Amino acid sequence: MFTMRRPGHATPPLSGTLSGMRITVLAGGVGAARFLRGLKAAAPGAQITVVGNTGDDITLSGLRVCPDLDTVMYTLGGGISTEQGWGRQDESFTIADELKAYGGGTPWFTLGDKDFATHIMRTQMLAEGRPLSEVTRVLCERWQPGVRLLPMSDDTIETHVTLSDGRRVHFQEWWVRLHAKGQARSIVPEGAAQARPAPGVLEAIADADFVILPPSNPVVSIGPILTVPGIREAAAAKTVVATSGIIGGAPVRGMADACLTAIGVETSAAAVAAHYGADLLDGWLVDEQDKAVADDPSLAGIEVRAIPLYMRDLDSTAAIAASAIDLAQKIQQRKGPNG
Amino acid sequence: MFTMRRPGHATPPLSGTLSGMRITVLAGGVGAARFLRGLKAAAPGAQITVVGNTGDDITLSGLRVCPDLDTVMYTLGGGISTEQGWGRQDESFTIADELKAYGGGTPWFTLGDKDFATHIMRTQMLAEGRPLSEVTRVLCERWQPGVRLLPMSDDTIETHVTLSDGRRVHFQEWWVRLHAKGQARSIVPEGAAQARPAPGVLEAIADADFVILPPSNPVVSIGPILTVPGIREAAAAKTVVATSGIIGGAPVRGMADACLTAIGVETSAAAVAAHYGADLLDGWLVDEQDKAVADDPSLAGIEVRAIPLYMRDLDSTAAIAASAIDLAQKIQQRKGPNG
Repeated sequence: MFTMRRPGHATPPLSGTLSGMRITVLAGGVGAARFLRGLKAAAPGAQITVVGNTGDDITLSGLRVCPDLDTVMYTLGGGISTEQGWGRQDESFTIADELKAYGGGTPWFTLGDKDFATHIMRTQMLAEGRPLSEVTRVLCERWQPGVRLLPMSDDTIETHVTLSDGRRVHFQEWWVRLHAKGQARSIVPEGAAQARPAPGVLEAIADADFVILPPSNPVVSIGPILTVPGIREAAAAKTVVATSGIIGGAPVRGMADACLTAIGVETSAAAVAAHYGADLLDGWLVDEQDKAVADDPSLAGIEVRAIPLYMRDLDSTAAIAASAIDLAQKIQQRKGPNG
Repeated sequence: MFTMRRPGHATPPLSGTLSGMRITVLAGGVGAARFLRGLKAAAPGAQITVVGNTGDDITLSGLRVCPDLDTVMYTLGGGISTEQGWGRQDESFTIADELKAYGGGTPWFTLGDKDFATHIMRTQMLAEGRPLSEVTRVLCERWQPGVRLLPMSDDTIETHVTLSDGRRVHFQEWWVRLHAKGQARSIVPEGAAQARPAPGVLEAIADADFVILPPSNPVVSIGPILTVPGIREAAAAKTVVATSGIIGGAPVRGMADACLTAIGVETSAAAVAAHYGADLLDGWLVDEQDKAVADDPSLAGIEVRAIPLYMRDLDSTAAIAASAIDLAQKIQQRKGPNG
């Protein structure tokens, strides 16, 4: 049954049925969550599994905070602060104020009371010995995000940044407290290379019709996921379509340029695709202003499609997601049943 | 320097100077906290050390809650809910509501948001390996309760109740959830007999001019404190004056009768004093309606004084505290310098 809600935005027609289609998405936070809303609208009958980045995770006031998982969960579950793009809507800050009165808390990373409750629940379950994947499943029972949300790993992974002055800080501290100022010398998802994928991750990739990379930060969101042994290999064996988070030489949102510079990659749609590599990527969605990327010799083997790529609203985002699906299906048809 | 604020209530005159006097109080929760407010008013120049019961402590939603320590800290620090006698004033319940939405939380023990922040701070510090006595000191830096507040022990102690049907529950569950219904077969402060007194506890008792027991529950508040090895012996070596929490055969507040029945002690001022024992108690303050207790042969060796014993307001409570001090001083004078 073809149940797709046709976006108002001009979009390529989708071939075949989408119901029952299995799509696995490797996801960061805000950008991924917005893309996923569009993907759900574009393919309402699809079974979507989201493999979420946990490199941003941090322990604050003794509570385990998983910003990317929560952003996806809140966004798809209708609890997100639409103004911020992260955290809960209609928040109060009693806990943060009280912690400050005790000389505690984390002034540069203020969590709202509702958000704190999520972290209390998570920390309690983790302390009971339950793995993060199970904890995430329990939290999602409330939010019903309409996707299966898996952390990339149940093992603890934390991205750390070494600054030019030699200081080593948690990614969140560099990103949120220092606003990505202070030239980063290196960015490493500590623990990722030794981690095991969470239960179901490799299977969700292997069983997917295709894999989509949303316009998340390639260094600190998608990068840590691909660093967990087995995930990149599993994805590379599938048709993978990614959407560029770089438009016209600048990140659409956030400070991806600071991250790309730190790992020696130019902030351009071509350079990011080359960074992912033709062994992983089959299709690369870029904005219309970057259509020249299609002729870049460094992207040989990657099919580039240029479309309007700004996620302005749900309709435009659904159109982008529909294009990603369409591109993936076209590539698969060309590659044949074993592609 | 004599700096006592003279209570408006009729009260025996206090002899000598109170400034620099060292008083150590073994304390439960609400009753003790109210008594301590009166004691501070009656003896503003005194150095008061409070040894707090930790048998009520419980882990809720993964956070360590110390109800008695917090009630003393909040009450003396001006943060208590004056209506309830426990918890913070002007509370909100966002966290509790959110935990419930996740299917978590503890519906029968609802904590407010401000209170949650205290438990988050405490749990974080405990997880860092800091002992409860140090954690309590840090929390008190904010509240400035005007007394030195020590937990009876840094070791984990939890009072458990065995019900007549054989069920074994945490004291809080019996007290708060079951409203002390269901005949208690036994009440045991688990871990107390194997615990060590917290640093400073034995010294505070040994160095005190005298020890006061406020009208706390003799079974579940004072009982666990006296069970920690060394504390009863240290107190017995000093002049100890206690105030009865039983007036006219009934507890002034709470359900002490249910606790006393469980350990086979009659709910009367005489029986409670006999339960404490003449080896421990030197003086016993009872209400005027219980003045006949003075002639009870089972209380030989304990000096009984009958006064108005209801803590109606700060003035009446200060008068009770002043009587306790006066009785202790009179007993000391009689016993001589080594009493």
